[in-house]
Amino acid sequence: MTFPQPEGVIIEAIDGGVTAPAGFRTAGVACGIKKTGALDLALVVADAPAAAAGVFTTNKAQAAPVLVSREHLARSGGLARAIVVNSGCANACTGPEGMAVARSSAGFVASIAGCAPEQVLVASTGVIGVQLDLDKLRKGAGEAAKALSRDAHGDAARAIMTTDKAPKSAAVSVTSASGTYRVGGMAKGAGMIEPHMATMLGFVTTDAAVAAPLLQRALREAADVTFNAITIDGDTSTNDTVFLLASGASGVQIDAAGYPAFAAALREVCGTLARAIVRGGEGATKLVAISASGAASDADARRAAHTIANSLLVKTAIHGGDPNWGRLLAAAGRAGVAFDAGHASVRIGPVVLFKDGVPFDDRAPEAAAYLARTDLDIDVDLGAGGPHSATVWTCDLSAEYVAINAEYRT
Amino acid sequence: MTFPQPEGVIIEAIDGGVTAPAGFRTAGVACGIKKTGALDLALVVADAPAAAAGVFTTNKAQAAPVLVSREHLARSGGLARAIVVNSGCANACTGPEGMAVARSSAGFVASIAGCAPEQVLVASTGVIGVQLDLDKLRKGAGEAAKALSRDAHGDAARAIMTTDKAPKSAAVSVTSASGTYRVGGMAKGAGMIEPHMATMLGFVTTDAAVAAPLLQRALREAADVTFNAITIDGDTSTNDTVFLLASGASGVQIDAAGYPAFAAALREVCGTLARAIVRGGEGATKLVAISASGAASDADARRAAHTIANSLLVKTAIHGGDPNWGRLLAAAGRAGVAFDAGHASVRIGPVVLFKDGVPFDDRAPEAAAYLARTDLDIDVDLGAGGPHSATVWTCDLSAEYVAINAEYRT
Repeated sequence: MTFPQPEGVIIEAIDGGVTAPAGFRTAGVACGIKKTGALDLALVVADAPAAAAGVFTTNKAQAAPVLVSREHLARSGGLARAIVVNSGCANACTGPEGMAVARSSAGFVASIAGCAPEQVLVASTGVIGVQLDLDKLRKGAGEAAKALSRDAHGDAARAIMTTDKAPKSAAVSVTSASGTYRVGGMAKGAGMIEPHMATMLGFVTTDAAVAAPLLQRALREAADVTFNAITIDGDTSTNDTVFLLASGASGVQIDAAGYPAFAAALREVCGTLARAIVRGGEGATKLVAISASGAASDADARRAAHTIANSLLVKTAIHGGDPNWGRLLAAAGRAGVAFDAGHASVRIGPVVLFKDGVPFDDRAPEAAAYLARTDLDIDVDLGAGGPHSATVWTCDLSAEYVAINAEYRT
Repeated sequence: MTFPQPEGVIIEAIDGGVTAPAGFRTAGVACGIKKTGALDLALVVADAPAAAAGVFTTNKAQAAPVLVSREHLARSGGLARAIVVNSGCANACTGPEGMAVARSSAGFVASIAGCAPEQVLVASTGVIGVQLDLDKLRKGAGEAAKALSRDAHGDAARAIMTTDKAPKSAAVSVTSASGTYRVGGMAKGAGMIEPHMATMLGFVTTDAAVAAPLLQRALREAADVTFNAITIDGDTSTNDTVFLLASGASGVQIDAAGYPAFAAALREVCGTLARAIVRGGEGATKLVAISASGAASDADARRAAHTIANSLLVKTAIHGGDPNWGRLLAAAGRAGVAFDAGHASVRIGPVVLFKDGVPFDDRAPEAAAYLARTDLDIDVDLGAGGPHSATVWTCDLSAEYVAINAEYRT
């Protein structure tokens, strides 16, 4: 477990991914959107209308499925029966025709699931500027409807992949005073370009009963410290989406007393999926937790951690195993936050390399040895004297990243 | 000439670099700070006290020479007689001892030049966290004083280099109603790590007579559209500095009527030096002018242009010759400025690939052919309906960049 756990609560990793929680079935099929014939359509269906929440890309260029899903969440009052996801085509920059396709796909999935169209959420990932083939989608959804089961979570996780190296699933069971329930999910990676751009998608379920407003709050809070605290290359896509559905099938109602345990479990699932995305980043060989501490505010801490985590000089130094505290300090110094080099410090794993204006270069070999690992932990104290800190997960930058992104068409 | 020229003014490129303007002598010598024995100390001396202006890094981790030069410009009221620059050691993150070294170096250069210490400006570039050897600096300054001439501008430009592939000099003569005068300069590159981090230094002179406050305004305005409008990798250093000295030796006084011509000439010299820095960026194979147009404000235009120019997905696509308008739009969309994808457009060279929400993918081969050039021009109209635009010069991102920055110690 990565985050602090509430007292008296047991959160354990389990199998089952997005259908580990009761009340959901899923399927992953191939419908021909991907020319390779690989799985490219996933359906997640709740046995009954579920409370639903969503967080979306902040990019101002938003794809049709993002616009339609936002609208559906608002119109349904936070209730959803099904999620339909395709890979291979992002349905982004596709104008009114793309909007019509996204709406139609929600329509025929609604008739499959037996619900109103606004109770269907849609998501797409893949090439942008190309229209999504509605016939293929309709045929695929029909086949997926017949294949729905609680065992197909592996197929579903594969069907949402683009250039991901591996499917990404996670689930936990929660044992607390409120009772026992589950949280599970699947995701696909960012910084994965197929063939036009990156998209991060996440689909999370729970069999706890959570009212829609509380569910939205929980998803927002969890996303802030997990999906929004990772970076591959600083780019955000037109399609980024995370949905969270609560079936209530466990019979456990999440109230104020039970919220901390639920929030912790959701953080754990989202955090596991988010770190799997970074680990699978294009060309990535290392997962790096970058913390900014000693900050004057939470916002300063987050901003500094993001600036350091996105610095090309930092990411290449980590790739080369170079304990380059100067690049870490320089990135913190340009983050536009309160920073005092005279009281700053830099720690790479257990090794303090710079403290209160004094470098300890004799410790560089020890830090270089630590950097040979694949899971790294780096902290920059901003020297601003505040109690605030934030962590961002990033990866190293390799020549392979450049090769993938410069030459994928050739 | 890259920028628009005022009417009735002739601005012509000339030889002579930083000593093309009358009233300045320079020298570049080797004093042993660089272990290779290469030139590593440059001195620029004015025949009489010159009006002086400076712009510095916005990084909050500021090196000793930056702090000392800021102080000297303030105390002297914008008057300087000499600039001393060393490469091979940045004198950054060196605490009180580093400050003492920077002050001492100004002191002995003052005795050489026959002026007060606050009339000496200092700059350093190279490894950070290492103390600068004052004895080597003193010996080097003494030798440089004997070698001062108007012909040594090439030596001086080489002495300020770190990993730059080539020295960078530029100069122009200005013929206007006010008379004839010159502006010249030299620079070293950013994104050049030797061995710890990047630094951009620029030293510009003129033999026009310009009062210090007007000189500072002119340098600030020119830097904003030249040195501050380039990016290699988005990192800014602890040492970035540009100085501008005006000797008045041409006898031409710059007043309000003459200011537009002077500003244009200064922009031209700074722009030529700035583009040379990008062209010499680590691993760079292409110089790319990224314009953001149709913006709601100048600030929006600059922010969007910087965001696009720093996008790894954009920089790798350009490296691969991929006319990937989706990445350009997505970068603009996440810049945090007014943006409307339905009215946005993307132009790569002469080829419009996206306009008012409609892609023109059949033009991709034509755009790909254009991208095979080494000097590129890309425009993204933000669709915000405003008249504002801004240009940022960037380079492509190659596997060689990663190799240089990840593996320079091995």
